[in-house]
Amino acid sequence: MKRNTIWLAALLFLAAACQEKVTSNQQRVVTDAASLQVALDSAKAGDVITMANGVWKDVQIKFGGKGTEDAPITLQAETPGQVFIEGESDLKFGGEYLTVSGLYFRNGYTPSNAVIDFKFDKEQVANHCRITNTVIEGFNQMSRDRKDHWVEFWGRNNQMDHCYLAGKSNEGPTVRVEIKGRRNIKNFHQIVNNHFGPRPRKGGPKGETIQLGDSFSSMSPSNTTVANNLFEECNGEVEIISSKTNFNEFRNNVFYKSEGSLVTRHGNYCTIDGNYFIGDENSENIGGIRLINTGHVVTNNYFYNLKGKSFRSPLAVMNGIPKSPLNRYNQVTDVIVAYNTYVNCPSPWQFGVGTNISQKEVLPLSEIRSARPIRTVVANNLIYNEQGDTAPVVEHDKADGVTFASNFIQNQGVRFDERQGLTSTEMTLDKVGELLYKPTTASAVEAYQGFEFDQFKTDIFGNSRTNDTSIGAMIKAPAADPMILDKGQYGAGWFSNEKETKEPSMIDVHPEGTDLVDKLASAEAGDVIVLMPGTYTLTESLVINKAITIQSKDENQLAEIIYSGAAGTPAFQMNPKGELILSQVILSGTGTQQAFASLEQNMSSHYNLRVKGCEIKGFDYVLKAYKETFAEEISFANSTLRDCQNGIELSQETNDKGDYNVEFLTVEGCVFDNVKANVIDYYRGGYDESTIGGNLSVINSTFTQCGGKESNGILLNTRGIVNVNLEDNTFKNNSVKLVALLWGAKNNTHANNQISNSGKIVVQENLKLTLVY
Amino acid sequence: MKRNTIWLAALLFLAAACQEKVTSNQQRVVTDAASLQVALDSAKAGDVITMANGVWKDVQIKFGGKGTEDAPITLQAETPGQVFIEGESDLKFGGEYLTVSGLYFRNGYTPSNAVIDFKFDKEQVANHCRITNTVIEGFNQMSRDRKDHWVEFWGRNNQMDHCYLAGKSNEGPTVRVEIKGRRNIKNFHQIVNNHFGPRPRKGGPKGETIQLGDSFSSMSPSNTTVANNLFEECNGEVEIISSKTNFNEFRNNVFYKSEGSLVTRHGNYCTIDGNYFIGDENSENIGGIRLINTGHVVTNNYFYNLKGKSFRSPLAVMNGIPKSPLNRYNQVTDVIVAYNTYVNCPSPWQFGVGTNISQKEVLPLSEIRSARPIRTVVANNLIYNEQGDTAPVVEHDKADGVTFASNFIQNQGVRFDERQGLTSTEMTLDKVGELLYKPTTASAVEAYQGFEFDQFKTDIFGNSRTNDTSIGAMIKAPAADPMILDKGQYGAGWFSNEKETKEPSMIDVHPEGTDLVDKLASAEAGDVIVLMPGTYTLTESLVINKAITIQSKDENQLAEIIYSGAAGTPAFQMNPKGELILSQVILSGTGTQQAFASLEQNMSSHYNLRVKGCEIKGFDYVLKAYKETFAEEISFANSTLRDCQNGIELSQETNDKGDYNVEFLTVEGCVFDNVKANVIDYYRGGYDESTIGGNLSVINSTFTQCGGKESNGILLNTRGIVNVNLEDNTFKNNSVKLVALLWGAKNNTHANNQISNSGKIVVQENLKLTLVY
Repeated sequence: MKRNTIWLAALLFLAAACQEKVTSNQQRVVTDAASLQVALDSAKAGDVITMANGVWKDVQIKFGGKGTEDAPITLQAETPGQVFIEGESDLKFGGEYLTVSGLYFRNGYTPSNAVIDFKFDKEQVANHCRITNTVIEGFNQMSRDRKDHWVEFWGRNNQMDHCYLAGKSNEGPTVRVEIKGRRNIKNFHQIVNNHFGPRPRKGGPKGETIQLGDSFSSMSPSNTTVANNLFEECNGEVEIISSKTNFNEFRNNVFYKSEGSLVTRHGNYCTIDGNYFIGDENSENIGGIRLINTGHVVTNNYFYNLKGKSFRSPLAVMNGIPKSPLNRYNQVTDVIVAYNTYVNCPSPWQFGVGTNISQKEVLPLSEIRSARPIRTVVANNLIYNEQGDTAPVVEHDKADGVTFASNFIQNQGVRFDERQGLTSTEMTLDKVGELLYKPTTASAVEAYQGFEFDQFKTDIFGNSRTNDTSIGAMIKAPAADPMILDKGQYGAGWFSNEKETKEPSMIDVHPEGTDLVDKLASAEAGDVIVLMPGTYTLTESLVINKAITIQSKDENQLAEIIYSGAAGTPAFQMNPKGELILSQVILSGTGTQQAFASLEQNMSSHYNLRVKGCEIKGFDYVLKAYKETFAEEISFANSTLRDCQNGIELSQETNDKGDYNVEFLTVEGCVFDNVKANVIDYYRGGYDESTIGGNLSVINSTFTQCGGKESNGILLNTRGIVNVNLEDNTFKNNSVKLVALLWGAKNNTHANNQISNSGKIVVQENLKLTLVY
Repeated sequence: MKRNTIWLAALLFLAAACQEKVTSNQQRVVTDAASLQVALDSAKAGDVITMANGVWKDVQIKFGGKGTEDAPITLQAETPGQVFIEGESDLKFGGEYLTVSGLYFRNGYTPSNAVIDFKFDKEQVANHCRITNTVIEGFNQMSRDRKDHWVEFWGRNNQMDHCYLAGKSNEGPTVRVEIKGRRNIKNFHQIVNNHFGPRPRKGGPKGETIQLGDSFSSMSPSNTTVANNLFEECNGEVEIISSKTNFNEFRNNVFYKSEGSLVTRHGNYCTIDGNYFIGDENSENIGGIRLINTGHVVTNNYFYNLKGKSFRSPLAVMNGIPKSPLNRYNQVTDVIVAYNTYVNCPSPWQFGVGTNISQKEVLPLSEIRSARPIRTVVANNLIYNEQGDTAPVVEHDKADGVTFASNFIQNQGVRFDERQGLTSTEMTLDKVGELLYKPTTASAVEAYQGFEFDQFKTDIFGNSRTNDTSIGAMIKAPAADPMILDKGQYGAGWFSNEKETKEPSMIDVHPEGTDLVDKLASAEAGDVIVLMPGTYTLTESLVINKAITIQSKDENQLAEIIYSGAAGTPAFQMNPKGELILSQVILSGTGTQQAFASLEQNMSSHYNLRVKGCEIKGFDYVLKAYKETFAEEISFANSTLRDCQNGIELSQETNDKGDYNVEFLTVEGCVFDNVKANVIDYYRGGYDESTIGGNLSVINSTFTQCGGKESNGILLNTRGIVNVNLEDNTFKNNSVKLVALLWGAKNNTHANNQISNSGKIVVQENLKLTLVY
């Protein structure tokens, strides 16, 4: 018995030792959700859990446990990018020193409020956790109003790095840092080296790429760092980054053709240093930095080719509301804007942005932004214009609380509103890299030494400012082009968002049988369906869920599509990601259908529609867009729309939260004849000064016998749309009271329209709208 | 020549060395303002400048220069306390490492906005400067509405220590820390070891003892420390300390019988640790800590014998305004109240303080405090009641956002509103020192371990909490009584505010000649003028500028004073610091004078008036108080007021900024007969929820034939007065519409009044008032 006991003891000892060894540095490969969760629940510091390659569908990962700084617990993909998280899936961190790497979220959406959440619940938050080398792409909820965040930060000292996130179309910032609750303040989160790929326009607010806190937590210290990221075409809304807490830092990020600004929306004492804002000749929507609140320091930033104005100007310093409500606009005070460089940015500095003193009659006093910036210093900045600018400084309200000192401008001899502290001088311009230029003053200039300016120790490239009094963002060029737009420097190493361009196939289709339906279904995105002459009779909707062009073979002998499907169904059913160009086609209904319509629900992504040279007749609606649907672009060109009960209907966002159904609606060279109601009905509701959307252009078109059944007596309904242009049109014998009721305070214009027996165009300066906030 | 050169060099070297020596440690005594300024302007690090003993009148000291940490420049009194700064004088710091010591500011006021200012101007502020061992006493502006501060902090790292400040009566906090402008944030000022002596009631807002910033700078970090100070009878207004910035610390201060609270009025994340709040059985005005905003930590505080309620309760946690305007009330969030001890404080914990949901009809929505505290923890506190309390927790609004944990109460078996986290238990009470008691639970209790509670490392006395799970403010008593009320521990070492009590002299006065006038003028404060029987005829006002009693010798044969001075002049002219007790005297006018009146201006301090057993008749006014005058107490007892055009008129603060003319107005056992207008006219205007004043008591009095000429038809005018009690009075044959219009929402009551042919008493629940802010 004794001998047995000894043996048993030895065996147990070995087993324990073995166990210990396995436990202390375990490597496990898991292949399904259940075993994954078991592995996670038992993981110890230093463990590595590997998810097998393949599609993981409907998986909710809860990653708790406690790693250590030296030995985190790691969850990784077998091959980075080959572990696909799809369906209703999410990932939650709820422990310490946990790392997740290499996942690819696609073809699905989160069943919770976040795709990646740094908490289990408000008590159990993550600390020192990290998501890296991961992609989230198009992981959208089924409807636009269903809000979520793709990454939600809670706790402290968490990090997202080398990730790629793109394509979010539903409500809610892509990344949100939450600091409600003491566990989440002073968090020092790091959002670094990521690639934020294109985020499409959302068509209303709540489409930020990053939001740090909210107004209700705007008194708390967050200390979040956003650095070295690329923001590419982040067009969700007017704010790319909405900083709403204190002491955040934004360093060395590149904003590339992104329609919005970095905005210090709430909160104070943020640092914005060494960032690049690169614009586009053709877009006035690309902005720079918009400042609200107290104590921010804006240094060493580079602004290139930005054409944005007002809210979207390269530097927009806003007016505040005196004694502002917590969720509105505090006055700008104690701000420094120093050592920045502006190249080819018209009117780069705009002050008193958002002043709305003139709208006192339609707004409550608590909405009137009349408090001008004070105790603000703008110094040691350079402006270089290849084309002279008559107004480099725009004062929407007086900039009398701003001190300008030692700013210099090369303005090609063009006179401008000179002022003390902004002096014209000769400069040369040297290319430092792609889209990167360094202006240098021809003669030495003296830098202004403001309070604590000695703390600005380096330039945008990290060159020391010690013993160098250069102004502007750059002291000297780096040895090599820093390649700020080299996408390889950002995001997941295994992922590229560069798509190969494919030559479109031209697919001939004949009128007989189901040839059109079949070939449309099998066509690839980008293909062109070519309709042979003849009549195409359809009884079911054509589903458009990819980019497709449908055009007649012979422009002298147009193909005709006759749709006789069920009442209330569309000839063309626009699905998510559907992009239709319909060209040179006659499209007829039998009076009860829609020519084009979105899905009634589950429009998880936007669609586009371009109609050129077509004739559309005999429908209940030409276009019917349902609620929570969005198109970036809808255009009708050189087409005839006639004998329809309703025209172009894009007015379903009636809850007045600032949303709308299409970004750009363009009608050019068209004929509207006998369209009885909703001829053009385009609506955006809610007072929301930072929704700068809705764009309607109606040019060179003719409207006759239209609008007779329009209940409000207005032919073209544009209520709440910010940008409207009616030009060179003819309105004749339309039985309406008004052709249009335009909004004078916004960018609504009309010119050279011929109106007879059709009412008139009225401009109302101020519109009374429901407050969104 | 060579030899000469060498000699010259040697000489120059010596001279330089000499110069160096003198410069490096110069000691100068100065005797007048001009030489003082010369000395200051040329002072170098390490220098000491001594002001000669004596009175320095109308001196404005500008102290610039640069000392160093090791060698500050010092300005000192020849003998501390013997350098008297009087007249229109002030002191400004505008350099670095400067120390001022031993001065005594009295008999004057500042011609600028501060007596001691830590700046020359907004660009040139003080850093590392110090005022110490100095007294400012009664250094008041001539009128109440002329605002100033006695000490204004600007810059960074400045200090006030071992100073005594008392008696400020005009508008403006005694000490104000300014943080507007980047030079003044993160200032780490130290306000330590001072004695804040009595500050009289101001009679309206803006009478704080310390105010840190304001709402407009409430987003900025201040990091000011207020520690180890004694606040004695700081009664200026409802806020003793008004913290309006972030990250301030209040440690180990003693608040002794001070009518107000330490209030986190704006700003966030303050630390309130180890303070003593000592009350008084007889006062409901003495408060504790009132919380507004986010992130405060309240630990280790001791509350004793506080009878304050609501705004003034020992712990008042306020309701906020949703989306509050910047200058109003943010919601309480993320607050911790832990390890505090409450001894003999009825209803110490009050939540939802300031809720005014019921006043929606008279207030704009932006004034409605409906946002209850959230994410707030109240844990590990002890309550000890010698008399059981039926409601230790008062919920003005629901405390459903507050987590209570491990709080214990000794309630003498009295049932109370028990809840989870507040448990009745047996305790003993041990005396630790004067007014200092330590409750101990009879059996061990378990402390709640909240998030970051491990950071509460010590108790109120500095005992370590490591390995000790005791709850309440005290782990164990210190070896000896800490003598928290020993005034020798605070303020200037050479100064004591303890006054010797003097036995009053009884001064007999005869009716003849100017005996009364002469003896009144020569009497000392506290003396009693005794009027022999007879008639005293006066043609000039009697000036009352000290504490004096005037009474008849024989109560069966009352002396009569007949005043026949100019129309509109008073028999008794109340001057600053005048305190009159008029007892058993007949006072007659000739119809055009005032019996009592304040000065029309220059009332730099308050006055008091008590009338007992007198008959007053034949005046235009019984009492006329002018604007910007203030009495702490006015009373009429057992007196008859008859045949006057006007009665008691205290209604001059008509600019509706919350001010009023008397704190306590008491009428008891009086007869009002044929007083035609302004019978009692007492007014406070402006909606200001934190002015808790105006106190009117009218008891057991009779009014007949009064008010007939009152234009508004109300006999007793009390508009805006917060505390009104009308009880046991008789109103008969007064030709008015109303006896009184009371304010139901405030503490206005009436009981047991007999009213005949005099209208009625109406109670209006809500009063519509001008907003003060």
